[in-house]
Amino acid sequence: MLKPKFRNISIVLYKPKYAGNIGAVARAAKNMGIHHIIVVGAEKYDNEEILQRSTHLAADVVDHIRYEVNIKDALGSFSYIVGTTARLGKGRGPFIVPRVAASDIVDRSQQNKVALLFGPEDTGLANEQLRLCHLVVSIPTSREFTSLNLSHAVMILCYEIFVASSSAASTEVAPKLALSSELEGMYEQIKTLLAEIGFLNPENPDYWMMHLRRFFTRAGILSLEVKIVRGICRQLQWYAHHKKS
Amino acid sequence: MLKPKFRNISIVLYKPKYAGNIGAVARAAKNMGIHHIIVVGAEKYDNEEILQRSTHLAADVVDHIRYEVNIKDALGSFSYIVGTTARLGKGRGPFIVPRVAASDIVDRSQQNKVALLFGPEDTGLANEQLRLCHLVVSIPTSREFTSLNLSHAVMILCYEIFVASSSAASTEVAPKLALSSELEGMYEQIKTLLAEIGFLNPENPDYWMMHLRRFFTRAGILSLEVKIVRGICRQLQWYAHHKKS
Repeated sequence: MLKPKFRNISIVLYKPKYAGNIGAVARAAKNMGIHHIIVVGAEKYDNEEILQRSTHLAADVVDHIRYEVNIKDALGSFSYIVGTTARLGKGRGPFIVPRVAASDIVDRSQQNKVALLFGPEDTGLANEQLRLCHLVVSIPTSREFTSLNLSHAVMILCYEIFVASSSAASTEVAPKLALSSELEGMYEQIKTLLAEIGFLNPENPDYWMMHLRRFFTRAGILSLEVKIVRGICRQLQWYAHHKKS
Repeated sequence: MLKPKFRNISIVLYKPKYAGNIGAVARAAKNMGIHHIIVVGAEKYDNEEILQRSTHLAADVVDHIRYEVNIKDALGSFSYIVGTTARLGKGRGPFIVPRVAASDIVDRSQQNKVALLFGPEDTGLANEQLRLCHLVVSIPTSREFTSLNLSHAVMILCYEIFVASSSAASTEVAPKLALSSELEGMYEQIKTLLAEIGFLNPENPDYWMMHLRRFFTRAGILSLEVKIVRGICRQLQWYAHHKKS
């Protein structure tokens, strides 16, 4: 098994009902660099069904799932426990959105073992389990349908953790925009061509040019693209003159 | 059916393989306030299987799924198409992370019909479909396992859109973009013209066209601007033919 990105973070599923969901959770977790899963409860699950939904690429995560009968045994070695809930009842919060929780979780996990605790598909976590949590996360949803699939809830929290940890993910590589001088050269060339073919009104040649300028600047045209446009103009001019003679 | 939060946003599934995934997508979409789903392809799906995974609470979304055989028919009425991919091959990007895409999608959807396009489970979208997209989103994942379950990918993008729409009261009105069908007409005309003047390599005419497509879609070209470009092409063609005779 490769070294996971988040070796101190575990997903803890409290009494899940469906083997398929455990598999889907394993896949989602591994997609986001989390390899440790603990399943709590007395239930036995069909391993084939788990593997079918995890796909073979997360089979290693499935093979290492720890099964615990009792929640206290499952959570004993963790020092930071993050619960999740869709039911925003009084006395169950305060609730934190995933984005805020994620950066906290990434920070804590540097030095601490962190458990992300999810309840059963039908009822979610009860107050009894929420009481064990340091933090309770609630995923925002449309009010008309708040109940997420278990693996979807896991995915959202893991995804937020992954994004929070790679602040590099937000530093997109911006492509190289054309210089102002390149742009002006291109506009001159387009204007000459359009005048030649009679597209521009000689009385007011800048009317259409203004539309074109506005479009090109809004687009944030790249150096490479300026070269392509100028290549096309050159070819058009060559073609026109060539045909004339 | 309740009024969806995002009435201008549709999920478009291109040739999904598994009915269960369609159901899981319907659930995820409705959780995040998106009610419109289009499934593209000739395949027939088991509706029972779809409904089992959507749960009865998203059955209304499943009942209203539009099935289309052909991707151009599916996308024709949209003016902003957002593709998704995990394969970051050269010439497939530039790629945007979901968070950046989400606020753009929320803005655009105020005035435009927006399609979120997802490919088949095994291969994802091919270059042929990505070419139709104004924006290509890539969801960040752990490098060791980049392939997301289809409904997980849909959930992440829908979740980001939901969060973007509720946090930012984005009041800017985005201008009216060209329809996909208008764009395709323009590309055809440009391609014909460039072939005629010998700018395109007949062996691989799509190489330069791909650069042009990418530029125009990134620019978010308006209906009016498509008309200007087509007018210029028409005039160029007229000029070329006129000079010949």
